[in-house]
Amino acid sequence: MAEWKNLDTLASFEELQKCGRVDLAAVMSGESGAERVKEYSVPMAEGLTYNYAAKAVDDETLSVLKKLAEEAQLSGKFEELYNGAVINTGEKRLVLHQLCRGQLGGDVIADGVNKRDFYVEQQKRIADFAGKVHRGEIVNEKGEKFTSVVQIGIGGSDLGPRAMYLALENWARVTGHLKMTAKFISNVDPDDAAAVLASTDVPHTIFILVSKSGTTLETLTNESFVKDALEKEGLDPAKHMIAVTSETSPLAKNAGYLDAFFMDDYIGGRYSSSSAVGGAVLSLAFGPEVFAEFLDGAHAEDELAKEKDPLKNPDMLDALIGVYERNVLGMEATAVLPYSQALSRFPAHLQQVDMESNGKSVNRFGEPLDYVTGPVIFGEPGTNGQHSFYQLLHQGTNIIPLQFVGFRKSQIGSTSQQKLCANVAAQIVAFACGKKDENRNKNFEGGRPSSIIIGEQLTPASLGALLAHFENKIMFQGFLWNVNSFDQEGVQLGKVLAKRVLAHNTDGALKEYSDLLDI
Amino acid sequence: MAEWKNLDTLASFEELQKCGRVDLAAVMSGESGAERVKEYSVPMAEGLTYNYAAKAVDDETLSVLKKLAEEAQLSGKFEELYNGAVINTGEKRLVLHQLCRGQLGGDVIADGVNKRDFYVEQQKRIADFAGKVHRGEIVNEKGEKFTSVVQIGIGGSDLGPRAMYLALENWARVTGHLKMTAKFISNVDPDDAAAVLASTDVPHTIFILVSKSGTTLETLTNESFVKDALEKEGLDPAKHMIAVTSETSPLAKNAGYLDAFFMDDYIGGRYSSSSAVGGAVLSLAFGPEVFAEFLDGAHAEDELAKEKDPLKNPDMLDALIGVYERNVLGMEATAVLPYSQALSRFPAHLQQVDMESNGKSVNRFGEPLDYVTGPVIFGEPGTNGQHSFYQLLHQGTNIIPLQFVGFRKSQIGSTSQQKLCANVAAQIVAFACGKKDENRNKNFEGGRPSSIIIGEQLTPASLGALLAHFENKIMFQGFLWNVNSFDQEGVQLGKVLAKRVLAHNTDGALKEYSDLLDI
Repeated sequence: MAEWKNLDTLASFEELQKCGRVDLAAVMSGESGAERVKEYSVPMAEGLTYNYAAKAVDDETLSVLKKLAEEAQLSGKFEELYNGAVINTGEKRLVLHQLCRGQLGGDVIADGVNKRDFYVEQQKRIADFAGKVHRGEIVNEKGEKFTSVVQIGIGGSDLGPRAMYLALENWARVTGHLKMTAKFISNVDPDDAAAVLASTDVPHTIFILVSKSGTTLETLTNESFVKDALEKEGLDPAKHMIAVTSETSPLAKNAGYLDAFFMDDYIGGRYSSSSAVGGAVLSLAFGPEVFAEFLDGAHAEDELAKEKDPLKNPDMLDALIGVYERNVLGMEATAVLPYSQALSRFPAHLQQVDMESNGKSVNRFGEPLDYVTGPVIFGEPGTNGQHSFYQLLHQGTNIIPLQFVGFRKSQIGSTSQQKLCANVAAQIVAFACGKKDENRNKNFEGGRPSSIIIGEQLTPASLGALLAHFENKIMFQGFLWNVNSFDQEGVQLGKVLAKRVLAHNTDGALKEYSDLLDI
Repeated sequence: MAEWKNLDTLASFEELQKCGRVDLAAVMSGESGAERVKEYSVPMAEGLTYNYAAKAVDDETLSVLKKLAEEAQLSGKFEELYNGAVINTGEKRLVLHQLCRGQLGGDVIADGVNKRDFYVEQQKRIADFAGKVHRGEIVNEKGEKFTSVVQIGIGGSDLGPRAMYLALENWARVTGHLKMTAKFISNVDPDDAAAVLASTDVPHTIFILVSKSGTTLETLTNESFVKDALEKEGLDPAKHMIAVTSETSPLAKNAGYLDAFFMDDYIGGRYSSSSAVGGAVLSLAFGPEVFAEFLDGAHAEDELAKEKDPLKNPDMLDALIGVYERNVLGMEATAVLPYSQALSRFPAHLQQVDMESNGKSVNRFGEPLDYVTGPVIFGEPGTNGQHSFYQLLHQGTNIIPLQFVGFRKSQIGSTSQQKLCANVAAQIVAFACGKKDENRNKNFEGGRPSSIIIGEQLTPASLGALLAHFENKIMFQGFLWNVNSFDQEGVQLGKVLAKRVLAHNTDGALKEYSDLLDI
């Protein structure tokens, strides 16, 4: 059994604080810089590479980070997790998103069920359903084929699947895999649902209602909005909707839906892109075989994450360097900067996965922590950002570590991909090395750390590996900080108070705000 | 003439550091909380209200902030700016975006031209052009009406106009003002342009090429991509494109475009939504009278910003409180959280305006600063965020100030707006007051400051006021930090290095990265 200890009780963490600081601008200049780019590189799955030459680490730091990985028992904890231990201690739950993608360890039996079998069964049921829709065996009331799909969900039921869909939409269009276009309704803002419906061919659309409990306020609000719209067009909602939910929810075995596909409590919303939550919409949009490739890519990365040596384990290494930057170098935020428009919502998804997982002030035993945990995560794609907020990243008063992502080939095979790649290469060096100028306003100090994940092309498989990389990185950081990365008590209080407002059961400031907002 | 001094040389800043800290959870509880919500409120233009009850300030802090506003001569500096002083010292330029919206002071004559007349003339020319397109007097080669518009631009030519368009698209659809749908191509990623074109009715589309110099790499790359697409459909690009550019650029008076509308060097990209850069696309999409309402709303807020007393000047007050949080309370980021799906890209736009303006380490004279300047800005709309990264905002180890925006009525007039408003009211109180729980994992410390801008409905006029509020806030913060908020030297180095990469003129780390990326 792994021992769960706070980061600041580990001898190797103390040693880490004493490591000499690396002068990034110096080591990244000249021949030494070229050497680092060649050396500080780890293969990931599906042809991706994690390159950390421009991080403020050297062989000494790396050797202490390796000790830290051992002392914090990162591999042992991961092993316990994928073998079915109750890692989510707050909610007393297993943590099984990796199991959707493949068997990493022994059989995991929970609630009397082999969970791998359960996930695979849902994948098969979804594949069958999608196949029937694509072949025109399941059709609308006029006997016409469904051509688009709209997912109604919120939080993890929205951000992840949406980011994955957008990442592959263009690829699918070019490669002939775009079977149905997908859209997403997530905000309780009625203007959101209205805008999506206004641009949707409603009679030829399947709506996917995603709610684990079947009781999520926002999702049910949007569902009634959609049902009204269907009825107004003279359509029967029951012939247009499927549910993704838990087996015990009111949405399961409910005649109001064409079919229902199941998830369970062992996969948190933000980790659910690999489950039926992502599976239904992605299989309908691109075909089940594409979703299977995505899962295979994620599984291959998960397998890599089992490696004990962090220098051969890109997910663990990324986690360790991040903790060094956060807890030793004192950096408070991380920017995620994909040089790929297809990854436009990937940073927003990571923002959720990371900040909801590790934005905690107590350890897994509920004891207050004396060190900082999860950073602010933000980002936008590629060259857009470099014409805007990069100003602060280059010349602002705080240093923000950067995570670049880039691909050698565009999804459509255009030549201007060269320019995109030239930009990301240039930025890494500009941030690391800077450039002296006598005009201080044009002076770049450099010393601003970044890493880059480089791939051949953004495909279903490499997208799966990319997603798994970050999920695993966040998991390892949670282990290092000794927090429970799999609950989210911090989102509860707002929900409770919102119900009080709607029941007009308020006083003090809450009543005044309610009045101001005409509630 | 105003005196430009560093923040840390001001007596009132020293006094501010000595102010007693406000226990936000305590003062926001019970009757005192109710009183604060009523009292700590300032009217903005167009029916908006800036409420700062949940900020960690009290009457003492506010009185010192007022002294700071005076000592830093915020009003005097603004007056110099709108009367045409060379406020952008680095580039030796005037700063005139407010002048697009109305005359705030005396005539501004530059380059021998009355600049207000120049901006109004461009607005009229755009209005004429848009009217002809809408009435079918300017048509495509087959004599058919144009039905959509695609803007090609990057950075400020993209983020602002895109955010404004999205903010009003649904409103326009409901109120019958949606004359043409608009899309945007911005990323040099060829997959971006391809995806936009794939979902665009190209033969019925006007493309707007936006580039001040007419030489922006990304924009010209995207232009050739679009021209190729037009030619492949047998269409003449010159009959489908207009330019927004400077009068001296190669795009002006160029037979390759249907027409050209002009901007100048006195409006930075990130402040250009009010200029021809926003004017062309918004006038084509919604009609020139809607764009005029937007400008009127912005002008009304600009007028308010002239008020000397910060307690009656919401833009200045917001700026002062932000500097207090950043430089006295030591907070490093700010989250912008609109409870309105229509404002989905508004945080990304503010991210640019704020971080590019104030992410500086030297003062306006090029001297290094000993205090922090612009924070990281990030955000996502409403209830999506509260199901995701709010976890860290509520229970993370760092305190992040929050900027909420909410409206009493939805753009389509639905009843579920109540739920949206209930959520934002609940969140403000949850962040401020927290909730004690013996289970520390369910404990909320509170003390997390926020403000809210409340409006009746998001309309062209209130959107204009909202945008101007933040532009003015950022300007006042730049005055306080004594930085030049109107240049962006930090985005230059990357451009220079990217050109070297494309010319294969690299060595060291840059060459290695180029090789890794197959450039």
